[in-house]
Amino acid sequence: MAGMSLDPQIAARLKRGADGLVPAIVQQYDTGEVLMLAWMDDEALHRTLTTGRATYWSRSRGEYWVKGATSGHAQHVKSVALDCDGDTVLLKVDQVGAACHTGDRTCFDADELLP
Amino acid sequence: MAGMSLDPQIAARLKRGADGLVPAIVQQYDTGEVLMLAWMDDEALHRTLTTGRATYWSRSRGEYWVKGATSGHAQHVKSVALDCDGDTVLLKVDQVGAACHTGDRTCFDADELLP
Repeated sequence: MAGMSLDPQIAARLKRGADGLVPAIVQQYDTGEVLMLAWMDDEALHRTLTTGRATYWSRSRGEYWVKGATSGHAQHVKSVALDCDGDTVLLKVDQVGAACHTGDRTCFDADELLP
Repeated sequence: MAGMSLDPQIAARLKRGADGLVPAIVQQYDTGEVLMLAWMDDEALHRTLTTGRATYWSRSRGEYWVKGATSGHAQHVKSVALDCDGDTVLLKVDQVGAACHTGDRTCFDADELLP
């Protein structure tokens, strides 16, 4: 049925890892902050494109994960792009509250290696 | 010998994939543009931290890759951070010229899926 799975023209360009996933870089659309990295399979990308809510595959829990469904810290999708190799997604979102489960705004705030 | 491999305190926090690699998000430090995603093992991260030149593991060529070594499009490292899970690196760099091998400024310029 139309609309039930990822557009075949997009699916044909996706280069998935051995686990069937591609990394998704998540960026705050207006400030440019990199918020987090998550993982998508075809279905997660399809849901993200069609619902406007960032949806990932949780490798630790083995299930789809609508960001903010439990925390309220939703990501409203502004744009989605594939990279030149088709093996990475860049998601620009409007993040509600903290992106990180620790309560930090981004997942990269706590562990600076350099400088 | 000291300084010959990745700091053990950093190595202990790194959570590598089955292939021994972690994804590295590469961002232009002043504009916030996400330039590309590449892959690092411990040695690539060590070289990046100690040389100030972004260095990756090329999965396609099976070798270390100093960004710009052949193209001249070097990445001068401004900061490096690990995420909350220790499984992703965020590299802020000053990119010389185009980041993408296609000649585009970033690897995400050519294939917008949404809007």
